Amino acid sequence: MTQYPLPKLKLPDIDAFLRRDFPQLYVHGEIFSVQAIGHGTCRMRMAYHESQLRPGGTLSGPAMMALADVALYVALLGAIGEVPLAVTTNFSINFLKKPDPCAMIADCRYLKIGKRLAVGEANLHSEGDDALVAHVTATYSIPR
Amino acid sequence: MTQYPLPKLKLPDIDAFLRRDFPQLYVHGEIFSVQAIGHGTCRMRMAYHESQLRPGGTLSGPAMMALADVALYVALLGAIGEVPLAVTTNFSINFLKKPDPCAMIADCRYLKIGKRLAVGEANLHSEGDDALVAHVTATYSIPR
Amino acid sequence: MTQYPLPKLKLPDIDAFLRRDFPQLYVHGEIFSVQAIGHGTCRMRMAYHESQLRPGGTLSGPAMMALADVALYVALLGAIGEVPLAVTTNFSINFLKKPDPCAMIADCRYLKIGKRLAVGEANLHSEGDDALVAHVTATYSIPR
Amino acid sequence: MTQYPLPKLKLPDIDAFLRRDFPQLYVHGEIFSVQAIGHGTCRMRMAYHESQLRPGGTLSGPAMMALADVALYVALLGAIGEVPLAVTTNFSINFLKKPDPCAMIADCRYLKIGKRLAVGEANLHSEGDDALVAHVTATYSIPR
Repeated sequence: MTQYPLPKLKLPDIDAFLRRDFPQLYVHGEIFSVQAIGHGTCRMRMAYHESQLRPGGTLSGPAMMALADVALYVALLGAIGEVPLAVTTNFSINFLKKPDPCAMIADCRYLKIGKRLAVGEANLHSEGDDALVAHVTATYSIPR
Repeated sequence: MTQYPLPKLKLPDIDAFLRRDFPQLYVHGEIFSVQAIGHGTCRMRMAYHESQLRPGGTLSGPAMMALADVALYVALLGAIGEVPLAVTTNFSINFLKKPDPCAMIADCRYLKIGKRLAVGEANLHSEGDDALVAHVTATYSIPR
Repeated sequence: MTQYPLPKLKLPDIDAFLRRDFPQLYVHGEIFSVQAIGHGTCRMRMAYHESQLRPGGTLSGPAMMALADVALYVALLGAIGEVPLAVTTNFSINFLKKPDPCAMIADCRYLKIGKRLAVGEANLHSEGDDALVAHVTATYSIPR
Repeated sequence: MTQYPLPKLKLPDIDAFLRRDFPQLYVHGEIFSVQAIGHGTCRMRMAYHESQLRPGGTLSGPAMMALADVALYVALLGAIGEVPLAVTTNFSINFLKKPDPCAMIADCRYLKIGKRLAVGEANLHSEGDDALVAHVTATYSIPR
């Protein structure tokens, strides 16, 4: 396995960064939390909250997309540091199974971090159940 | 051009359906509104609202994804009627330019509506500006 | 509609370019031909040939992908000129219906042509039948 | 880790199947070979051959797409047996680095194998080098 270098941002840094630059994540309370960050990796948790739900108590697709998008952004910052102008250029998600009515975990890693583009993937599963609920690949454009 | 049949649901029906089954769309007020619905087509508007924003006043990626997802769902219902179990299986978005700080429009149409799968596309642009901000393709699985 | 500028390359130029730089397109004969090129647009034809087939006489998925990839490349050259180092970074195809056993047409246009990235789409249909067989979106990275 | 059941098809079966139903794979000789097959997994090799090349000796994008498409198909057959009507509905590839001028390996696994849809991923790398060259996700529709 590749030996990854240390993350450019640590957990308290990223927490402060998100609260300052992404206040919308906290508009419904403490729903999103970073559980681990590495050099191009991240584990993020989304609490189960009624603002994320569809009829029948299932998590909405856009809620899962929001989780994956921010988790992939955090993982990228773990590799390149606080570069606020990195922008998503492509985001593609496959929904694989109905999520359980509980918190959701996104595990992210980067397949490539180049000078101009970074490509990452996120595996989403219900907390306490390893079965994949959704799989994301996304591309970020990194400013010079 | 193909002559499309009439929509299976009309504007008041879809509005009532969304308020009943997608109350989360209205949690921040009257942000999402269906402007037109046809047989596999839809125009939906997302008002500019602080819950959708990123630093600098730009619309967040997940807000645009949420708009496209619900607009494509509405367009599908316009073709197949109120089938609440249709589920997104794939959703892929390309972000093309920074959106203006104003309302956003999603224009949707379906490329295919089969017995089991439907594939649609959504073009997103800022209200009053035809330049594409994002382009989405998505696949929905239709229950028997 | 947008008034597009003239193409940077004309039909004889692109034909000569493909024969010189993409000889593999011609290894089975005159299968691929550019029918029209514009500034970010292209219509390309792939003749029906046994090297492209799957059991039952249907065109193979990879044959359609090859057609779309080269057609999108040609359309990009029509906008930016002969830049041989533009590379595909993402290519996503939805297959919509079984193609007829005949020639296939790819119609391409670009949704965005930026300084670093270009995003195009291709609509594939059987010759003489407007019904979509496949839809492609692809991203190209443009060297400085 | 999940304990996978045995494959429904073994290496000699799949080899015979491909030669019978996919003769186009062999039109330039023994270029494609299945190195391993499991229940929803497959390792496939594509020899370095001039029919796959682009200017400068690099492998063409469509050649890599063809490798991934057939490898994912083989991995699916390893899970569901010889179901010749399974069709690709979506195929999405991210190109990550320039491949070396040598044979290429595709390692596939399935994220989901449902009754109607299967979603797999393929990691492509140059033989003898673990660095990812491309990453694919694809969806297959399984007939009843």
